[in-house]
Amino acid sequence: MKLIDGNQIAQTIIAELKAEVSAIDGRKPCIALVRVGDDPASISYVRKKEKTSAEIGISSRVILPPVTISQDELFALIDQLNADPEVDGILVQSPLPKHIDEVAVFRRVSPEKDVDGFNTINLGKVAQEDPTGFVACTPAGIMEMLARSGVDLKGRHVVVLGRSLIVGKPVALLALQKKAGANGTVTICHSQTANLPEITRQADVLIAAIGRAEFVTAGMVKPGAVVIDVGINRVPDATKKTGYRLTGDVAFASVAPLCSQITPVPGGVGPMTVAMLMSNTVKAWRQSRGK
Amino acid sequence: MKLIDGNQIAQTIIAELKAEVSAIDGRKPCIALVRVGDDPASISYVRKKEKTSAEIGISSRVILPPVTISQDELFALIDQLNADPEVDGILVQSPLPKHIDEVAVFRRVSPEKDVDGFNTINLGKVAQEDPTGFVACTPAGIMEMLARSGVDLKGRHVVVLGRSLIVGKPVALLALQKKAGANGTVTICHSQTANLPEITRQADVLIAAIGRAEFVTAGMVKPGAVVIDVGINRVPDATKKTGYRLTGDVAFASVAPLCSQITPVPGGVGPMTVAMLMSNTVKAWRQSRGK
Repeated sequence: MKLIDGNQIAQTIIAELKAEVSAIDGRKPCIALVRVGDDPASISYVRKKEKTSAEIGISSRVILPPVTISQDELFALIDQLNADPEVDGILVQSPLPKHIDEVAVFRRVSPEKDVDGFNTINLGKVAQEDPTGFVACTPAGIMEMLARSGVDLKGRHVVVLGRSLIVGKPVALLALQKKAGANGTVTICHSQTANLPEITRQADVLIAAIGRAEFVTAGMVKPGAVVIDVGINRVPDATKKTGYRLTGDVAFASVAPLCSQITPVPGGVGPMTVAMLMSNTVKAWRQSRGK
Repeated sequence: MKLIDGNQIAQTIIAELKAEVSAIDGRKPCIALVRVGDDPASISYVRKKEKTSAEIGISSRVILPPVTISQDELFALIDQLNADPEVDGILVQSPLPKHIDEVAVFRRVSPEKDVDGFNTINLGKVAQEDPTGFVACTPAGIMEMLARSGVDLKGRHVVVLGRSLIVGKPVALLALQKKAGANGTVTICHSQTANLPEITRQADVLIAAIGRAEFVTAGMVKPGAVVIDVGINRVPDATKKTGYRLTGDVAFASVAPLCSQITPVPGGVGPMTVAMLMSNTVKAWRQSRGK
């Protein structure tokens, strides 16, 4: 069994981006990070994105509207960033306050600057296999991880557990594409699936993204499978100072010995997400220059 | 075995639309049918669409640019139709001449008038499960057929053979949706799939859309399955006046006896496509009025 080290792969990507950005003569790529309100998780995510940008040489502009901002005011802010020629990528940190329509906000971000890949047009471009689009960071990170771990999906059975718009559906569409590394046969399972273990046991590559702690057990995995664990769940744990531990959607201890390769949680898919956001930002900069 | 009669279901839908349209006070829904050049198949398709519109009471405007029209001229024509408040739906008949970028043309059609459902935004809306979008007519027709034949996909295994942008991918996304009638477990197979019969034999519902005559044989189908045959293939046949006969992707004679329900070719999915185009046009009219 080989552990797929997400931290290490992400660091390699960050180093590659750093080399590319440092060679840029003139204005460097710039990402606007919009964080509405003071959700603790959002504060930590945005800080991480800011820090990684700085590490690469991407300039970042952190904008912190109050939690009371109206949808129209947020739209106006996005419109300003859309029009600003010095901004290449725009990220509006999720979750947004309940009085704001999140999908509408994601649609407001110009598709050319939608480095989060949540704009309807960029989702459509994933289906169209249009390489000018932006792929959402988690599914993009999963594909990049597989590629850099020597896993070619061609003709193999990829089973995706979970049909979310952010992970399950786009990763299924990516695994299905007619490009090198993809060309997988893809099954998407979810809460309504009958005989789930029977299906997951067919997976050459199993991608677990259902948000249920340690849901995937040894009996659900074919020996030799590659397992990608997208889940990040908090499980109460009295031995921890925080009172909880982080665990994936896979019962790692019992499943890992069966696998040819598996991602840990934390340190698997998680770190890839920020790396892909950075990669998308540099791509947006490149495309805005017609490169 | 029950035959799913596409002609009859399409006629029911057309009758429903006719009742709805005849109750409209004022301007009726209007579809613009753009046919570039004189491709014989296109002539016949557009004529059929014109005729069905008339039957329902939808007004149609047939526009026949010459095969030499430039892409910019075609864009200008589409822009005009996009801006025309009397036009609810725009259909640009495929295939277009080789000097024109078909995807670019489909993107030029305003998403609100894109009754063919080929605009990138409408593809993205299928993934987002946004009911304001337009679903491409063939996948929409398949779902409607299943619903009207009493087939609930919930928890059942739907295997889609073919990953095209026009059928395979959107029908997979539709079967997966969280709405009544859908909620299927979905597998998408294609030319690169290993052990294809092993996978198709798991299908409770098998949707064949690969464009290979009589590709699906009895050994690939589970007894009791529902089989939807999307293929329309020409097979040389000396006994026919035309020199060919039409056949689906399914070897009907040997497969049909195994099925609980199956669509014939012709007279299955084919007629549904025009009915769904009409349904989309009435929907576009409705949405343009804010209804």
